Amino acid sequence: MNRKELITQIFTKKSFLSVGLDSDPVKIPQHLKDLEDPVFTFNKAIIEATLDHCVAYKPNIAFYESQGAGGWDCLKKTLELIPKSHFTIADAKRGDIGNTSHQYAKTFFHTYDFDAVTVAPYMGIDSVSPFLEYENKWVILLGLTSNKGSQDFQFIKDEKTGKYLFELVLERASKWGNPDNLMFVIGATHPKHIEGIRKIIPDSFLLIPGVGAQGGDLQSIMKYGMNEDGGMLINSSRGVIFKENGPDFAKAAGEAAQVLSEEMSMAFVGQGE
Amino acid sequence: MNRKELITQIFTKKSFLSVGLDSDPVKIPQHLKDLEDPVFTFNKAIIEATLDHCVAYKPNIAFYESQGAGGWDCLKKTLELIPKSHFTIADAKRGDIGNTSHQYAKTFFHTYDFDAVTVAPYMGIDSVSPFLEYENKWVILLGLTSNKGSQDFQFIKDEKTGKYLFELVLERASKWGNPDNLMFVIGATHPKHIEGIRKIIPDSFLLIPGVGAQGGDLQSIMKYGMNEDGGMLINSSRGVIFKENGPDFAKAAGEAAQVLSEEMSMAFVGQGE
Repeated sequence: MNRKELITQIFTKKSFLSVGLDSDPVKIPQHLKDLEDPVFTFNKAIIEATLDHCVAYKPNIAFYESQGAGGWDCLKKTLELIPKSHFTIADAKRGDIGNTSHQYAKTFFHTYDFDAVTVAPYMGIDSVSPFLEYENKWVILLGLTSNKGSQDFQFIKDEKTGKYLFELVLERASKWGNPDNLMFVIGATHPKHIEGIRKIIPDSFLLIPGVGAQGGDLQSIMKYGMNEDGGMLINSSRGVIFKENGPDFAKAAGEAAQVLSEEMSMAFVGQGE
Repeated sequence: MNRKELITQIFTKKSFLSVGLDSDPVKIPQHLKDLEDPVFTFNKAIIEATLDHCVAYKPNIAFYESQGAGGWDCLKKTLELIPKSHFTIADAKRGDIGNTSHQYAKTFFHTYDFDAVTVAPYMGIDSVSPFLEYENKWVILLGLTSNKGSQDFQFIKDEKTGKYLFELVLERASKWGNPDNLMFVIGATHPKHIEGIRKIIPDSFLLIPGVGAQGGDLQSIMKYGMNEDGGMLINSSRGVIFKENGPDFAKAAGEAAQVLSEEMSMAFVGQGE
């Protein structure tokens, strides 16, 4: 999916919502667990229930990979189920020397036909560039993450420029790609930094995880993060897909997605039409 | 495998050699390509030919993952082929929020029974700790990598301490684990830094990639990197496994491994016995 199509989806639905398919086999409802492929059945129901309220799906690859080869089959079937109208993100946080990053790009853009893959920046330009060679595909590079450990290294201040490591990542990496093929992960748990981040990368899309289970505040994120193209995908995983654990799990997920989507639609008041 | 067993292997064989099973399906010999599982057949021959000269095997996961579910089956079969005398490293460079890193740890230590997995440090402590909870399993954390892009962020100098980012990674992360469950990746392309690195982490094992195809110099690495426990695994991938592309590929790989191992044995002259 290209940038223009993504923007159209966001403005049509008045939603930034990405639903995180972190479908931990241990956490899915008990009544599904005896089925042939419980996670696939779970994902199918979740996708059908949330489709109208979100613009993207983001399976976190760890939850599939940990199931071995069968987990990758389930991932493939899940991906095939998502309509082309929705942006698909492989949350994989890969990154290696160029030779190897080429293989990871092949995994997520060719073997599996995702629109985007999350990539870790530590190894620098040649770990990221191979992913940028695919047309209409996206790198989503870790900038400022939502977890406690984001404090360990991402806020190291560069002696030369006085900038934080995560700011240098945004600044330098934004020159490796462009706003048509490169987004950044900015955790919802750092709303006060989003204003400053928008000055470094005004046009780039941000993928914002950490709303819900991790405690990020939706209103401040939209206030500081939105740009004239929308410019954001806001992800909720556990807060949507594990809202309820009984037979009505999918209905509850649909409702949770709708609540988030309606809150997001406030940001579009007075825009467009 | 625990630290003591690893040290015994190294001193018995007088070798630090890890063979990188970066078995790119495109690059394996033509005559294998029509077989049912060409990569597995290739790996089997390479392992048999190199077994006596190395102490570890390091499949880079990207080359398996890019083949979809079948690639993961091949990885599993390959791993089962490696005798317990050899240390096994999943070169995966994973790392995510705690909840997700738990799943990645499950992948490589439970679903697949590797001794160690490489992990990326950008997301900090909670992205690394879940891997450290497994007994007799190892995290190998990226410190200073062998690629060109290592210049982009790893040499950012912290305003407060005057230390490089990679030095802070070594310093801080070495407190999250200990030399019995945590090693560091230090690229062979930075031999002049290895002396300084040994001052920060004198007791930790180093996994040193980049010898051979990437141009690292073995003698200086051993001079500065070795400690009284050996303290290193030195990896060669393409320089061993793709030494020859014809019917004698395995023999050539065995010879390449032997040459490296014999060069490494020089470091043990006058030690032990």
